[in-house]
Amino acid sequence: MRGEIISIGTELMTGVNVDTNSAWLSKQLGLLGVSVIRHTTVGDDLATIVDAFRQATQRADLVISTGGLGPTLDDMTRDALAELVGQPLEMDEQSLAVITEFFAAINREMTANNRQQAMYPRGATVLPNQWGTAPGIQLTASDAVVFSFPGVPREMQGMFGQYVVPHVTVRVDHAGISRRVLRTCGLGESSLADKITDLMVPGRNPAIGTTASESIISIQMLAKAGSAAEAERLIDDDVREIKKRLGSLIFGEEDDTLESVTGKMLAGRNQTLSTAESCTGGLIGKMITDVSGSSTYYLGGFVTYSNEQKIALLGVPEELIAAHGAVSEEVARAMADGCRKAVGSDYALSVTGVAGPTGGTEAKPVGLIFIGLAGPSGTTVIERRFRPTAARENIRGYAARTALNSLRTQLSIDEPN
Amino acid sequence: MRGEIISIGTELMTGVNVDTNSAWLSKQLGLLGVSVIRHTTVGDDLATIVDAFRQATQRADLVISTGGLGPTLDDMTRDALAELVGQPLEMDEQSLAVITEFFAAINREMTANNRQQAMYPRGATVLPNQWGTAPGIQLTASDAVVFSFPGVPREMQGMFGQYVVPHVTVRVDHAGISRRVLRTCGLGESSLADKITDLMVPGRNPAIGTTASESIISIQMLAKAGSAAEAERLIDDDVREIKKRLGSLIFGEEDDTLESVTGKMLAGRNQTLSTAESCTGGLIGKMITDVSGSSTYYLGGFVTYSNEQKIALLGVPEELIAAHGAVSEEVARAMADGCRKAVGSDYALSVTGVAGPTGGTEAKPVGLIFIGLAGPSGTTVIERRFRPTAARENIRGYAARTALNSLRTQLSIDEPN
Repeated sequence: MRGEIISIGTELMTGVNVDTNSAWLSKQLGLLGVSVIRHTTVGDDLATIVDAFRQATQRADLVISTGGLGPTLDDMTRDALAELVGQPLEMDEQSLAVITEFFAAINREMTANNRQQAMYPRGATVLPNQWGTAPGIQLTASDAVVFSFPGVPREMQGMFGQYVVPHVTVRVDHAGISRRVLRTCGLGESSLADKITDLMVPGRNPAIGTTASESIISIQMLAKAGSAAEAERLIDDDVREIKKRLGSLIFGEEDDTLESVTGKMLAGRNQTLSTAESCTGGLIGKMITDVSGSSTYYLGGFVTYSNEQKIALLGVPEELIAAHGAVSEEVARAMADGCRKAVGSDYALSVTGVAGPTGGTEAKPVGLIFIGLAGPSGTTVIERRFRPTAARENIRGYAARTALNSLRTQLSIDEPN
Repeated sequence: MRGEIISIGTELMTGVNVDTNSAWLSKQLGLLGVSVIRHTTVGDDLATIVDAFRQATQRADLVISTGGLGPTLDDMTRDALAELVGQPLEMDEQSLAVITEFFAAINREMTANNRQQAMYPRGATVLPNQWGTAPGIQLTASDAVVFSFPGVPREMQGMFGQYVVPHVTVRVDHAGISRRVLRTCGLGESSLADKITDLMVPGRNPAIGTTASESIISIQMLAKAGSAAEAERLIDDDVREIKKRLGSLIFGEEDDTLESVTGKMLAGRNQTLSTAESCTGGLIGKMITDVSGSSTYYLGGFVTYSNEQKIALLGVPEELIAAHGAVSEEVARAMADGCRKAVGSDYALSVTGVAGPTGGTEAKPVGLIFIGLAGPSGTTVIERRFRPTAARENIRGYAARTALNSLRTQLSIDEPN
């Protein structure tokens, strides 16, 4: 099965937004056994959109479009699809009812523009959208099946799972495909790849590759065999070998994150955590509480962005800051200890550092981070130097992930109480 | 002048990499007065690449390709260009000398593959690359001028500046293009569009459209006229009209964010801020400290994720939580007051709510959020109900942006001290 992806929106043509949907869709389609042969991005111009659909439906068996289903005048995907199949637009009463209900629920006035979102080309299938107001559309043109989804990634991704996955699954013969993702933290991508380079040779089955996202390096595995069970067995064998080589660098599989994994460890031991953040400014707390149910183990903490707050809220001695500076091993240790004591949690994480781009000195350059961890078995501090030219956002992200990873490592060493 | 962009690489078709080059190029071309009409992304397949070039050169005046100029077997842009113009590949001795020198300088062996990077279609212009080893190629096909650059963003961007900018500048008469982006918060996209729908009709000059990203709705404006000054005047007229209609919904222009704008307001008045977060778990602090230099006005704050911490750290009366629940107007007020007092800041923001997906009740559904703001002129609390089916991540994002927006609104009312 050959697939094409069409992204629609003038904000993509003017460079205001980067199209991340095409990459996401390509990856998912690849995993389902669909070969993606082309992405096309066009602006909000009716004739151009129709032309893009016409070409794609002539080349591919499956075409997925994102964007242009919104409520405004420049949203023209519905009109383009109608023109593509030569049918008029009609109102889908059920979609209209859902949209009307939505606006009633949030107590906002529904405008005439919003009604337009319930229109679809006669003969097409309306795809209800449980993540937003704009329904999707499915139709057939030139023997290709077209799915049109909104451009909002969350809505598009949800609808892809609901509609495209079942559609493809029954059509692509891939009884014998199995995939697995291992998540690692603590080593860079090339150093990690070095350890499994013999498993990553092109053409090998399972196919193994790495992808990096901030400090998380993921190992993507895909096996093909005569049956699903056989493919699964091939993957299992490789997973066993990779785990032997990488040990505790691997923290999870599939959708596991550092925050979900440490959360599960804490919850399983009935232990609690607090945080004292300086340069990360709340990011670690934010990440921990991204996990629903985190209130069972995360008690809260402090953002002590100024020296005064480190002294007042965490009891960091003023002399300590004067002697060593706020970005120092000593202060990270005092922050973690003070936080653990103030909150009464089993563990407390602290971070202090120079996130940049300004504020660096020769002795304390941008990228220098100290991470403190106070726990039942004592307090440790680790020092990390990230690339000084990295973006503030990335340095903060690295610092937060390194902190969570140090908690994970400590939890796997400490005996549960 | 009409432009098209072609991105080449199987890593883009499999979703391993996101294509950021197209967005960057589109923005730059737009600023130069080139209308970008299409992006096409194809894998490392010769026939498909040739087809993409053939189509683009028939539609556009300027075609820029990125990728496929590397040293490996799957780099086929050179071959595709040779086939496009029906010419053989030849060796460019000067490029070969540069590449040979490069490998000598880094003390690495040069392979036969690397020689391939010095090849170009007969009659084309070789574009030296001072940022890397692969030269670019310029040629003409179907009256369109084609520039082929490597896919490495730094190299591509440098070569764009060196070769495309001068090419376009002498050809496009545009002096007359101006763009502007207005940022708004406080109204949904369709309600906002309703207020300026007469300005958004297709074909109008300036062209005006909206884009939504979480709770920020942006108004994109593009004017074309005989001169830059004239285009600028058209934009200014529309901005004046839009500001009259939308008033304080507009919080900034271009790259302004709620956190940068409120930060500037606070810094300008020499006032300070602290935060007490429950359901947002540190996100507001994180957003505020995304801004470099935020330490001049942001003192820090608390993540009080448990009732105990609200009582212990913020002095919220236990009875208040017992009587009204942690998610209540009363507790949001007490959190803001307690935070302002504990930290000694001029303003204190608090958030308490149900971020979901679990934890909702009929009386306090998922999406219910209370935002407290304590300041010199008193304490206010606003209540918001976000869609209960929204993702936890989105509810938290909305809550954080609504909180920052309420601070912005209050700052514009309060007299500076």
